Amino acid sequence: MNFIDINCDMGESFGAYSLGKDEEILKFVTSANIACGFHAGDPATMKKTVQLALEHNVGIGVHPGLPDLVGFGRRNIDISPDEAYNLVLYQIGALSAFVKAEGGNIQHVKPHGALYNMAARNEDLAQAIAKAIVDVDMDIILFGLANSELLKAGRKYGLRIASEVFADRTYQHNGTLTPRNQPNALIVDERVAVAQVIRMVQEGKVLTNQGEEIGIEAHTVCIHGDGPNALTFAKRISTELSDAGINIKKIGEII
Amino acid sequence: MNFIDINCDMGESFGAYSLGKDEEILKFVTSANIACGFHAGDPATMKKTVQLALEHNVGIGVHPGLPDLVGFGRRNIDISPDEAYNLVLYQIGALSAFVKAEGGNIQHVKPHGALYNMAARNEDLAQAIAKAIVDVDMDIILFGLANSELLKAGRKYGLRIASEVFADRTYQHNGTLTPRNQPNALIVDERVAVAQVIRMVQEGKVLTNQGEEIGIEAHTVCIHGDGPNALTFAKRISTELSDAGINIKKIGEII
Amino acid sequence: MNFIDINCDMGESFGAYSLGKDEEILKFVTSANIACGFHAGDPATMKKTVQLALEHNVGIGVHPGLPDLVGFGRRNIDISPDEAYNLVLYQIGALSAFVKAEGGNIQHVKPHGALYNMAARNEDLAQAIAKAIVDVDMDIILFGLANSELLKAGRKYGLRIASEVFADRTYQHNGTLTPRNQPNALIVDERVAVAQVIRMVQEGKVLTNQGEEIGIEAHTVCIHGDGPNALTFAKRISTELSDAGINIKKIGEII
Amino acid sequence: MNFIDINCDMGESFGAYSLGKDEEILKFVTSANIACGFHAGDPATMKKTVQLALEHNVGIGVHPGLPDLVGFGRRNIDISPDEAYNLVLYQIGALSAFVKAEGGNIQHVKPHGALYNMAARNEDLAQAIAKAIVDVDMDIILFGLANSELLKAGRKYGLRIASEVFADRTYQHNGTLTPRNQPNALIVDERVAVAQVIRMVQEGKVLTNQGEEIGIEAHTVCIHGDGPNALTFAKRISTELSDAGINIKKIGEII
Repeated sequence: MNFIDINCDMGESFGAYSLGKDEEILKFVTSANIACGFHAGDPATMKKTVQLALEHNVGIGVHPGLPDLVGFGRRNIDISPDEAYNLVLYQIGALSAFVKAEGGNIQHVKPHGALYNMAARNEDLAQAIAKAIVDVDMDIILFGLANSELLKAGRKYGLRIASEVFADRTYQHNGTLTPRNQPNALIVDERVAVAQVIRMVQEGKVLTNQGEEIGIEAHTVCIHGDGPNALTFAKRISTELSDAGINIKKIGEII
Repeated sequence: MNFIDINCDMGESFGAYSLGKDEEILKFVTSANIACGFHAGDPATMKKTVQLALEHNVGIGVHPGLPDLVGFGRRNIDISPDEAYNLVLYQIGALSAFVKAEGGNIQHVKPHGALYNMAARNEDLAQAIAKAIVDVDMDIILFGLANSELLKAGRKYGLRIASEVFADRTYQHNGTLTPRNQPNALIVDERVAVAQVIRMVQEGKVLTNQGEEIGIEAHTVCIHGDGPNALTFAKRISTELSDAGINIKKIGEII
Repeated sequence: MNFIDINCDMGESFGAYSLGKDEEILKFVTSANIACGFHAGDPATMKKTVQLALEHNVGIGVHPGLPDLVGFGRRNIDISPDEAYNLVLYQIGALSAFVKAEGGNIQHVKPHGALYNMAARNEDLAQAIAKAIVDVDMDIILFGLANSELLKAGRKYGLRIASEVFADRTYQHNGTLTPRNQPNALIVDERVAVAQVIRMVQEGKVLTNQGEEIGIEAHTVCIHGDGPNALTFAKRISTELSDAGINIKKIGEII
Repeated sequence: MNFIDINCDMGESFGAYSLGKDEEILKFVTSANIACGFHAGDPATMKKTVQLALEHNVGIGVHPGLPDLVGFGRRNIDISPDEAYNLVLYQIGALSAFVKAEGGNIQHVKPHGALYNMAARNEDLAQAIAKAIVDVDMDIILFGLANSELLKAGRKYGLRIASEVFADRTYQHNGTLTPRNQPNALIVDERVAVAQVIRMVQEGKVLTNQGEEIGIEAHTVCIHGDGPNALTFAKRISTELSDAGINIKKIGEII
């Protein structure tokens, strides 16, 4: 495969609070994961972000999070599979109304933060999330961490899935990310980060933290929309992936 | 006209908190206004209430409220028309996902509490709410107080509208409800309440608090789901309207 | 020791939602754990519950919970010790203002639900909670599960502690409660439940689920304020403990 | 009088969201109004802001707001006087715990946004807010708009009050601020803004929008902590008031 989608979390402002440089980062991505009011975002922000995504012809994704605004959806909450199903379904619906009102379509669903991480490891949560998508729209693509339970659940239910990789994170022998609290979890050198993505796309391989080479599928790469270097890195990875001959397209046009 | 729809607010439980006797009251109504998490309700409650409404073959309505859980959506909040549009659209979407997942359709939208009352008087808010419905689904019926700005806005945008009347409230000469803080606002005698509804349906008239007779359209009558006498009154009005030869049907089958 | 305090969670209503029979249950308890708006309760409910507790001359306790209204504070959230410190301090302060305004004093702090359970096992969270109390008022008594990390933390910081036992739960060999998802976790027979408490108070012993006898300190016993049998059981345990010659007093008068 | 206090809203960050340049602005103010989690702020932010205020030897104020995080407490909500009393008392308590834990004292209370504006005009709300302070600590100073109902209520209850003026707003003949939706409501020229404050302090007079001169008391002047020019204006007004011979002190040392 010689294609990749570039996705970024968006619409994470809230009321008087502004977060991320959505409008500028949209020039360098092909898919936008839009917050739905549980971990971030609010109705006005959702509307504006959907409009921006449509203007930039970017794939629109639901970015459902845990109901934890003060924790930005980053803290694990012991929810049941039923609770996961319900809160994902609720958030898909809420964003869908704005997308429909603006004349667009939902391309994908990517869970946020702790929900994403829990669904990567927990089969029951993963299946509940996949089932919520199945019950509302089989055309929606499910984003999940490469080699995760979430992708397995999506496959099981017959959904199209997108295997997501990270430029700035290292991988372990089992194909999952090195936890942030371990040494060498982050790739600071942008050249190394970009090279890792190019290799994942072109060769389907990544060098783990333990020094071995493992297989990995890279349908979409996640970049960050905040932080001081967000824009320059977004531009850099977009340019260098193109220069390497990789076709950057929204995931809905790839799979 | 010799038809009427009977509607009731539902799905207003929240987490560990239970409110209303939804399952029992569903036997006596034809339309259910389901809370969407802003003034009451939560994703689990929404799912369960949608399932109950479908089992009872009752018309399903979105019941969007102001973002005021502790105030149960009963306190006016100075929102702008844009804010009204966004929060109604969000809530329509959220409920729609559950309805779609359960194989049903949205029949109507009825704003809750303070939002309903503000939209009855404020033309800009009324139009914003009607516009949110138009932008997402022209087939949805808009419920509004008889003679209100909300109904005018619905007509203006080409929506089907349902003129709502109240059994237990008195009317003023301009066709609006007597405010609760005035004497004679409430009709305590259930016989009088039922008789008022029968006359509104069959003759299109109501006797005002000032003693004059005015015209009123009665497409749907609102009953309450909580309170000690909720169930007995629901049964009584349902029985007596039928006995008077009035056809009780869900609004989607009437207009 | 031949004394016991009887405590109950209270003030867990919220806005239009009513929960528990506070006013009636107050006749049978000596300490009230009052919710502070995070897992349940709201400012109006706090005020009213403080007034009721003072009228009944019951010890007033802060009942801080996780910020999870829809989950009623029963779902574990991965909070840091700093977050635990801050949210306990915040809730102590909030309730203290109502108590001060009504002319009373805070007697104790008892964490709620998931926070209570996490603090029973997690030393860092336990110490953070104890530290929050120390920093605001050394006279406050800390309630914790018998044999828990929370009590250890309280002792370490020099706080007075109250070892809490449960009438309707069985114990394991290490002195902790049998988890609810295991068989024999609950004691359904009220006679057995009351007898267990009497023995814990008078002999300082409890028979575990595994059939061995272990030591346990019983300073306060927790009863429930909702459920169909709450009131009759509250009355029963109060009466039978008295009949057994046990002195029922608020914890502030015991330790 | 030749003294003035300079106050600024602070601690209005929330979770992952950062707002205002508290640490830098603290160099130029003498009193800090700290948000308490209803319109902005969270327990962690409250703790940090209290610490910063103490480090800078700035008077600490409670800044209670309406329960409207997404609206930043700027939208009027039709609350009753009882609700106002309860939510102010709650927020005073919550902040007090952090202040006590850090070894400081509450100097003042200044309601935020819509609550401030409603309390300026509505006698019942004003009295409820003053009463909440009276019931918890008579030593707390009440901040209110010059010539407002809130200051009258404070006087009535025997509280020390601080009459607040604005540098960048024009005044009407009755001594209140020109509403923002009217022309000439804002003073854009910083020289004019500073001169207005100097005159209010030294002469007790202000020129209204209608061209007449009226009396006004200036105990404290409010400056803004966000916006592109916040820091430079804070520095400028602080310097120029000093240069004009006005003694800039925290309000607790003035009245």
